[in-house]
Amino acid sequence: MAFTEVERDYLIAQALGRLATIGPTGAPHNHPVTYRVNEDDGTIDIGGPDLSTTRKFRNIQADPRVSLVVDDTAPQPVGPGGQRGRGLEIRGAVETLRVERPLLPGFSNEVLRIHPRRILAWNLDAPGRNDRNVA
Amino acid sequence: MAFTEVERDYLIAQALGRLATIGPTGAPHNHPVTYRVNEDDGTIDIGGPDLSTTRKFRNIQADPRVSLVVDDTAPQPVGPGGQRGRGLEIRGAVETLRVERPLLPGFSNEVLRIHPRRILAWNLDAPGRNDRNVA
Repeated sequence: MAFTEVERDYLIAQALGRLATIGPTGAPHNHPVTYRVNEDDGTIDIGGPDLSTTRKFRNIQADPRVSLVVDDTAPQPVGPGGQRGRGLEIRGAVETLRVERPLLPGFSNEVLRIHPRRILAWNLDAPGRNDRNVA
Repeated sequence: MAFTEVERDYLIAQALGRLATIGPTGAPHNHPVTYRVNEDDGTIDIGGPDLSTTRKFRNIQADPRVSLVVDDTAPQPVGPGGQRGRGLEIRGAVETLRVERPLLPGFSNEVLRIHPRRILAWNLDAPGRNDRNVA
């Protein structure tokens, strides 16, 4: 598991992430996504309705490198040291696969599974940053 | 102005965006950012404390292409047709410049100014998508 317990619980509690991919000309694209953490191995699955017809799906077939950011900011303190922002950026490579049970009703059977390579966390386990490479 | 009135008001009302950039190896990075819409010309300024020491700043010096996504999702309907999600993805190129007055107190005088080239909007002016190139 690439994530600390606090990071894992945070990822599970948040509803939405934003996934950066590389478009056909090498420029970045950015997509709001629903995701699920696989608690056994720390991979992250992204689903959606008609997933295989989406731009992000086609981008990933051409270049599997992605960055998923999950973060929140609030007027009141949310971080362990009273910070008003916290989150993680998860960089890695995506494997496309088919699952029996979609993430949500109406979603496709395809999922995009992120294998994290580098995690950049802030104000989760402790105030400040916790950036590291992961296996 | 590249944005419709509804899009502009939405961008002004939202507090936070996520900015995708291209890292040194060509893989995407993704950064939560504070931004301001310049209502005279529809460009978007991104600031931050110690901006010129950040990874996103260095990324943009090497490749100015970015994608900013601003979106929200709620349990209750927020879109014009009762949808529970809405937002915009703004793709463009960034110009780095110095301003007299930072976006927020404590922010650097450098700003990253996005010149929109393509806007992909959903559930703002009307239900569904409104994707188009802009000058």
